[in-house]
Amino acid sequence: MTNDLIARRARLLGPNVPTFYEEPVQIVRGEGVWLWDAEGRRYLDCYNNVAHVGHCHPKVVEAISAQAAVLNTHTRYLHEGILDYAERLLGHFGHDLSQIIMVCTGSEANDVALRMAQAVTGKTGLIATDNTYHGNTTAVAHLSTRRPPIGGYPGHVRRVPAPDSLVPLGGSLAAQPQAFADGVARAIAELEEAGHGFAGLMLCPIFANEGTPGIAPGFLDPTVDVVRRAGGLILCDEVQPGFGRVGSHWWGHEFLGFAPDVVTLGKPMGNGHPVGAVVARPDVMAAFRGAFGYFNTFGGNPVSCAAAMATLRVIEEEGLVENARDVGGYALGLLRQLRHPLIADVRGFGLFFGIEFAQGAQPAGDFCGRVVEVAKARGILLGRVGRAQHILKMRPPMPFSRGNAEQLVETLDAILREMPA
Amino acid sequence: MTNDLIARRARLLGPNVPTFYEEPVQIVRGEGVWLWDAEGRRYLDCYNNVAHVGHCHPKVVEAISAQAAVLNTHTRYLHEGILDYAERLLGHFGHDLSQIIMVCTGSEANDVALRMAQAVTGKTGLIATDNTYHGNTTAVAHLSTRRPPIGGYPGHVRRVPAPDSLVPLGGSLAAQPQAFADGVARAIAELEEAGHGFAGLMLCPIFANEGTPGIAPGFLDPTVDVVRRAGGLILCDEVQPGFGRVGSHWWGHEFLGFAPDVVTLGKPMGNGHPVGAVVARPDVMAAFRGAFGYFNTFGGNPVSCAAAMATLRVIEEEGLVENARDVGGYALGLLRQLRHPLIADVRGFGLFFGIEFAQGAQPAGDFCGRVVEVAKARGILLGRVGRAQHILKMRPPMPFSRGNAEQLVETLDAILREMPA
Repeated sequence: MTNDLIARRARLLGPNVPTFYEEPVQIVRGEGVWLWDAEGRRYLDCYNNVAHVGHCHPKVVEAISAQAAVLNTHTRYLHEGILDYAERLLGHFGHDLSQIIMVCTGSEANDVALRMAQAVTGKTGLIATDNTYHGNTTAVAHLSTRRPPIGGYPGHVRRVPAPDSLVPLGGSLAAQPQAFADGVARAIAELEEAGHGFAGLMLCPIFANEGTPGIAPGFLDPTVDVVRRAGGLILCDEVQPGFGRVGSHWWGHEFLGFAPDVVTLGKPMGNGHPVGAVVARPDVMAAFRGAFGYFNTFGGNPVSCAAAMATLRVIEEEGLVENARDVGGYALGLLRQLRHPLIADVRGFGLFFGIEFAQGAQPAGDFCGRVVEVAKARGILLGRVGRAQHILKMRPPMPFSRGNAEQLVETLDAILREMPA
Repeated sequence: MTNDLIARRARLLGPNVPTFYEEPVQIVRGEGVWLWDAEGRRYLDCYNNVAHVGHCHPKVVEAISAQAAVLNTHTRYLHEGILDYAERLLGHFGHDLSQIIMVCTGSEANDVALRMAQAVTGKTGLIATDNTYHGNTTAVAHLSTRRPPIGGYPGHVRRVPAPDSLVPLGGSLAAQPQAFADGVARAIAELEEAGHGFAGLMLCPIFANEGTPGIAPGFLDPTVDVVRRAGGLILCDEVQPGFGRVGSHWWGHEFLGFAPDVVTLGKPMGNGHPVGAVVARPDVMAAFRGAFGYFNTFGGNPVSCAAAMATLRVIEEEGLVENARDVGGYALGLLRQLRHPLIADVRGFGLFFGIEFAQGAQPAGDFCGRVVEVAKARGILLGRVGRAQHILKMRPPMPFSRGNAEQLVETLDAILREMPA
């Protein structure tokens, strides 16, 4: 059956379409933190942040169904749905981040955010880290592709050394925040010299794709200072840390303690429904709206707004941010009790944790890959991240419980005991 | 109430967010070809192609609701939904257009299509007409923006003179197909000379945004010949003509009679659910998948596939392509009986028609705008298109009936009688 599906995928979707796991899994049903495959095997989902409030949350399903039956059209007609959602969402933001553009994906959101920086500054130069991913449009992929685009990387994009935990910038975790800022300052100088000028820096505030290496409040203060002095914008990609995942706060930038100019939202926003958004200050929005005639047909339609509103309400009403803090702290404590010679670090914020596997400064990517495969065979879905794919990535749906955390850690403990270094 | 919503929009969404009509309308409910505003007024929808099989079609709503309750996750796990849909959709294509990438919007689809042309050719140069719109990402907006992007238009994009009905390329409608091809040939030569090389030409096969000026089968033959000889790809944006709207065929390129290398789909595909797709030959897909590591989190998820599958089934089961041909022909016949000194042309294919208003070669954009406003006041929703917004655009949901067509034309007749030139 699986082989049949793989063959059909190759025929209908073409080559190199990514799947998870050496033997891909056919998932047919989801509920809360659980997924089931076609043979009825149940998996504890410790990886998927899209199903933020839990797979198939009945309140989100109900909201989508109800609105889809009444009206689904674009925002060139007036509708209260987008306004009610905007009001409720923006109430969770500070720093005068008080206006919104609704789109369909995090990629579309980041594509808009880059143009906002260009509209405000009149410059084109953009900066991101050299070990990140911000999305799949042409412009956004320039920040994050691991293969050069046809024609080569465009001159107005610079990729700066990413923070790293095994080989920290500046030689130590303590020196890393300033060393990262120094890299950004050098890239700004290069962009100025090349005539592009500096428009903005895009980053995930917890450096999720870089493996969250040594991130703590204040980490970005020197960088924010460098960007501000150069007149650029800070474009904060909250697709992974946002909507309370970090537990201590609603947004990664609040946890880090800085004020972005633009925030982008994606995956978890509609619990799986294709919806994303760009949140900005009124001056930034006005510059963008003045420079570009942007319209998104599906963006902000009543059904997408109903999905996003239901997701937001569930986060609030079920206390999922508090749950992320509570269960996240509990799980991190348990994970830190795991013992294995290749465990180099265990870290996390809220319901986002990583276990870094390495021997000295040598990342253990293959070992980490085997852990993921064995865990899958034992009913636990995990992922990997980091330059050598050597960091176990755990980012479960937000209703993850203490019992779920115990099951995760007990399984990992058993796996690690059976896997010598 | 309306004023309150407009004020909230300005506060929450910022300036220059487009609405239709001098006094925007608050639509709260839709069913079939009908929309209702907050005061209970009913409108005959003669404009919206997103609700392709009719607003809130119960089979599409049911498919979305049922799948959303069971599973909604990404394509890194195996799932039959995307494969079943791909098989059924691709069965409607010829020319070895047999593989698909599913995305969330027509803009995302076009953004991928441009990179496909670059991957196949190894060149960057792209061509579109100078009076079109293909979507809102940075790369796609370069083809279609009416305002230059920050930093100016990129050198690898050329915009060629669009076909026109009032001032045809080459001096006459008969000369226009060759004259358009000549413009493309000149742009290709410029791209080669500038060192970009030629990757592809993107166009809507019926030139919907250009106002469908004098389009008939064979129109693009000289252009296809020019593109093929230069080794470039034809990227066919079927967002407007596709899924049977042209009545005579499922796709605009079949009506025109040529074989594109890539086809993109958007708005009507999921009847309002955010879903789009890129369809290509296996050699084109392999080149793209080899050059770019593309993944789209929401693209091809089971709920989007269920929405698209239900929409496709309704088109087939309700005979909506045949309906577009039948009612479209009937409506065009009625529209051609309208008499007014400013009517320069009445044309259409299937359920897509335009009335061009002009005095000689002078487009009557203001007059056309007044027709749209008065029609709205009388319960008929219409749009405008063309270089001077002087062409009345009618593109209703596909279950549009002969009775609906009579209501449309009777209302237009009454309006035109009261509006002297």
